[in-house]
Amino acid sequence: MGSSTAGKVIRCKAAVAWEAGKPLVIEEVEVAPPQANEVRLKILFTSLCHTDVYFWEAKGQTPLFPRIFGHEAGGIVESVGEGVTDLKPGDHVLPVFTGECKECSHCKSEESNMCDLLRINTDRGVMLNDGKSRFSINGQPIYHFVGTSTFSEYTVVHVGCVANINPSAPLDKVCVLSCGISTGLGATLNVAKPPKGSSVAIFGLGAVGLAAAEGARLAGASRIIGVDLNSKRFIEAKKFGVTEFVNPKDYDKPVQEVIAEMTDGGVDRSVECTGNINAMISAFECVHDGWGVAVLVGVPNKDDAFKTHPINVLNEKTLKGTFFGNYKPRSHLPSVVEMYMNKELELEKFITHEVPFSEINKAFEYMLKGESLRCIIRMTP
Amino acid sequence: MGSSTAGKVIRCKAAVAWEAGKPLVIEEVEVAPPQANEVRLKILFTSLCHTDVYFWEAKGQTPLFPRIFGHEAGGIVESVGEGVTDLKPGDHVLPVFTGECKECSHCKSEESNMCDLLRINTDRGVMLNDGKSRFSINGQPIYHFVGTSTFSEYTVVHVGCVANINPSAPLDKVCVLSCGISTGLGATLNVAKPPKGSSVAIFGLGAVGLAAAEGARLAGASRIIGVDLNSKRFIEAKKFGVTEFVNPKDYDKPVQEVIAEMTDGGVDRSVECTGNINAMISAFECVHDGWGVAVLVGVPNKDDAFKTHPINVLNEKTLKGTFFGNYKPRSHLPSVVEMYMNKELELEKFITHEVPFSEINKAFEYMLKGESLRCIIRMTP
Repeated sequence: MGSSTAGKVIRCKAAVAWEAGKPLVIEEVEVAPPQANEVRLKILFTSLCHTDVYFWEAKGQTPLFPRIFGHEAGGIVESVGEGVTDLKPGDHVLPVFTGECKECSHCKSEESNMCDLLRINTDRGVMLNDGKSRFSINGQPIYHFVGTSTFSEYTVVHVGCVANINPSAPLDKVCVLSCGISTGLGATLNVAKPPKGSSVAIFGLGAVGLAAAEGARLAGASRIIGVDLNSKRFIEAKKFGVTEFVNPKDYDKPVQEVIAEMTDGGVDRSVECTGNINAMISAFECVHDGWGVAVLVGVPNKDDAFKTHPINVLNEKTLKGTFFGNYKPRSHLPSVVEMYMNKELELEKFITHEVPFSEINKAFEYMLKGESLRCIIRMTP
Repeated sequence: MGSSTAGKVIRCKAAVAWEAGKPLVIEEVEVAPPQANEVRLKILFTSLCHTDVYFWEAKGQTPLFPRIFGHEAGGIVESVGEGVTDLKPGDHVLPVFTGECKECSHCKSEESNMCDLLRINTDRGVMLNDGKSRFSINGQPIYHFVGTSTFSEYTVVHVGCVANINPSAPLDKVCVLSCGISTGLGATLNVAKPPKGSSVAIFGLGAVGLAAAEGARLAGASRIIGVDLNSKRFIEAKKFGVTEFVNPKDYDKPVQEVIAEMTDGGVDRSVECTGNINAMISAFECVHDGWGVAVLVGVPNKDDAFKTHPINVLNEKTLKGTFFGNYKPRSHLPSVVEMYMNKELELEKFITHEVPFSEINKAFEYMLKGESLRCIIRMTP
């Protein structure tokens, strides 16, 4: 396959967002060959994440259209550009919205995954190499999204944003590891690091929060307290190891006080997955003094201020943030796939829906209605 | 010595604070024998710390007078109360303003030193055992201060607040480890943990901040950036390993931006030792994204709010607080004394003044004028 199309433009189907908030339109697009340090991927499965919806709605940021969204996916390398030695046609891969150049101070640090070169950039709709798009329709460029644009049968991605995974892994399952599930899982396993037998509060029981709960379950936490304003989510959450539920609406005092009373002073760890500023503050204040660690995952609004009395910090509580669960995409994602292959990590329970590519707008509907955790979009019939 | 006075009231000299902000008066006081889980100490050397001055001035809290202040000291056990097995008359000790019961969840946690039973209590002026004072003058009780009251030739302390140290250690030097120096040192060594070769910013170059710098020097930090509003402090700070100086007054932009420019994006670690809320925020925001850790030591005002944009947290900066440098008084302080005995830790440079007990008010003057780091008060002629 690689040999017949390599170096040539590929004409294929892509779901194009022409305008903010309007249904995507399946169009025939031209996908240019990969340039230096780029690879062209055949996408087999993609899934929809809240971040796609957020930027498609374009309510909080400068709109950039027409654009091809999509950043959770599994695919196969079709061809590689100049200088690419880490990947070859036929490799099974997960494209990732943030990258790992392996040369900057962040990539060289054991602690950081915030690569200087390839850190997520939601405003840029073009490739780094030449500042242009690889997608076009009759000569009109169509913008990229976070360097992945996986709502297309073929896409071009920087080699630093591609994880080379076990070719036996089922791409229709592990594609969800490209973003949300790894983000929540890593927030708990890599950052909060709950000791065995500890208590963990999870704020927000969407896909990311449930992945954080799954991480707490894998770490051997004995109490996993789910916090959500929607009590319906509590039933599903049990499958992810959540043992107790708190709906802040059921109490007339702050949820951090409710949790402190449930846990003799506070939980050992908390993970905030909503991005709501008040939930962030509650998540910090609900951890136990002396040793509690709160981890923020959810992305807040631009104008939000995190505000707490400094005594909460001085009482030896720790506040940490994480981005993509502190996973370095190329170095670490293959081992997360192995966790699934070894049957430690359960992914099936995150996948609530599946649609063919032609019905991609249904995936948006399921998410907007709050019905789905992850909806897999099957690219090929 | 122990045998002749054990079980009896001891009459001795103490410096009594009769009123807020008024000079201490050397009085003859009666010191009752230690009760269950208490020890009576003969204080040989004590030193003055800002916290004594703060509560003596009584500007920010409910006043409690008459009171015997003092909480940094070195002494010898005179007698022990019922149930005390860890200490015996003649042991060389450092009394500490916070304790370690060895039985609560904090004492059992490897991470916390915030003992439930003996955590600092600045409002309580009496002993835990019977809710009464061991000090009196003609039957009038004189209040204790943070369970230590070392401005007295003899004092009674809970056994959980006493570190049993190497009897060869010179008490006129190691007495300063009872509070401020250990607080700053531990903030760096135990909490910030700067890697060898890293950059560290220290906010506030008083005794605690200089001890934090000393910790950074011991840890092998290659750049130690001192931040203080008083440029005179920069000269002295060089002795403590500080390599560069920033006076925020010299710039028309926030000090966190100045530091970020000096360090290609931020320091690896910061330690805040002023308690000023704006310095706290700057200390957090000046650490590098991806791996930076900010440690808060300084105690803020009651009404202060720590406020930052949550993106600073999400960019993988960590905010931690510490109390007494995370040292457990009984378990860890003896080893800090050994660091001095091994000539790793230098204490002499912290000791700028010395006065006899009769001139204790001079120690207050030196501190109020900002002339001293530590002034040793010699109890016996």
